[in-house]
Amino acid sequence: MKIVFASTNRGKLREASEIFEGFEIVPISAFSAWKSPDENGSTFLQNAVIKAEAAAKAAPDSIVLADDSGLVVPALDGAPGIFSARFSKEGTDAANREKLIAELSGKSDRSAYFVCAAVLIFPDKTVLAAEGRCCGRIIESCRGNNGFGYDPLFVPDGFDKTLAELSENEKNAISHRGRAFRKLLTFKGSSL
Amino acid sequence: MKIVFASTNRGKLREASEIFEGFEIVPISAFSAWKSPDENGSTFLQNAVIKAEAAAKAAPDSIVLADDSGLVVPALDGAPGIFSARFSKEGTDAANREKLIAELSGKSDRSAYFVCAAVLIFPDKTVLAAEGRCCGRIIESCRGNNGFGYDPLFVPDGFDKTLAELSENEKNAISHRGRAFRKLLTFKGSSL
Repeated sequence: MKIVFASTNRGKLREASEIFEGFEIVPISAFSAWKSPDENGSTFLQNAVIKAEAAAKAAPDSIVLADDSGLVVPALDGAPGIFSARFSKEGTDAANREKLIAELSGKSDRSAYFVCAAVLIFPDKTVLAAEGRCCGRIIESCRGNNGFGYDPLFVPDGFDKTLAELSENEKNAISHRGRAFRKLLTFKGSSL
Repeated sequence: MKIVFASTNRGKLREASEIFEGFEIVPISAFSAWKSPDENGSTFLQNAVIKAEAAAKAAPDSIVLADDSGLVVPALDGAPGIFSARFSKEGTDAANREKLIAELSGKSDRSAYFVCAAVLIFPDKTVLAAEGRCCGRIIESCRGNNGFGYDPLFVPDGFDKTLAELSENEKNAISHRGRAFRKLLTFKGSSL
């Protein structure tokens, strides 16, 4: 069976393929009707739903998958949150990281967590969504060359390395996205 | 077990109680932290998710339920859709119905359907959502005193009466909301 993923990011597509074992993960770019939507929700879940509905419109007979992720820093009242990719004016990874370092300067609470909201929409319009988190702390300067975004500043709980110093396999094992995807896969409706 | 419903409408609360048998349906108004959110989504699902997340914030340890519903008329390009309650300037049921009658005047396709998007959020932030529809047609003038909104203008497929001429039990048996709720209840994650 196929799952159409509303992403063109190769790392994400690979991660989804590993977790949704037995499914063929197809990028939404394979569907010419796909139009990237305006992600104007006010939560990760809302933005993931917006993306998933846009994908379902472009691929109406498929199971579609979408996610929205970001970094939440309690000492910054939850920022950068849903604005993680556009935290700084420039909106580049480097500028976003610099802003984060500056805003946390002198703060004693450097705890932070990555959040991923992942959404599946089935052809009958049933929807399943789940949240995954990866908790850790923000260090004072960048370390490591893997990953992207805030990874070089983020040390996950139980590790001494930043996410950018971990291998892709090590990172996927603890990632917020992987956790959200696995929750989708194991949901059996048993809560009701 | 309890389900907190993001609604204060007595009819909806009763309908939910009947369908989610064995659960206690608690209105969100029982939670002082509840603040009715701005429903600024662009689909029924998005608005239902916005309401459900607001309810989950006010009642974080509960299973919460929210829905968003409306009338879709293909000959009017899907209007009134998510704007069903505010179709006319006045926004009253009577003015909305008058506008619908006027806009459909002379159109041969008078088919229409009610849609309900229903969303459950569990305390672990897993989300389940489903869509229910009730298909029928719009007649040229109002009939019946039960129900509300567009009910006096809507004759469901397989019936001669409008929704406003049916009893509450008859209406609940075929309603878009009932169908969406029942889908939530029977979802077993078996699709994956």
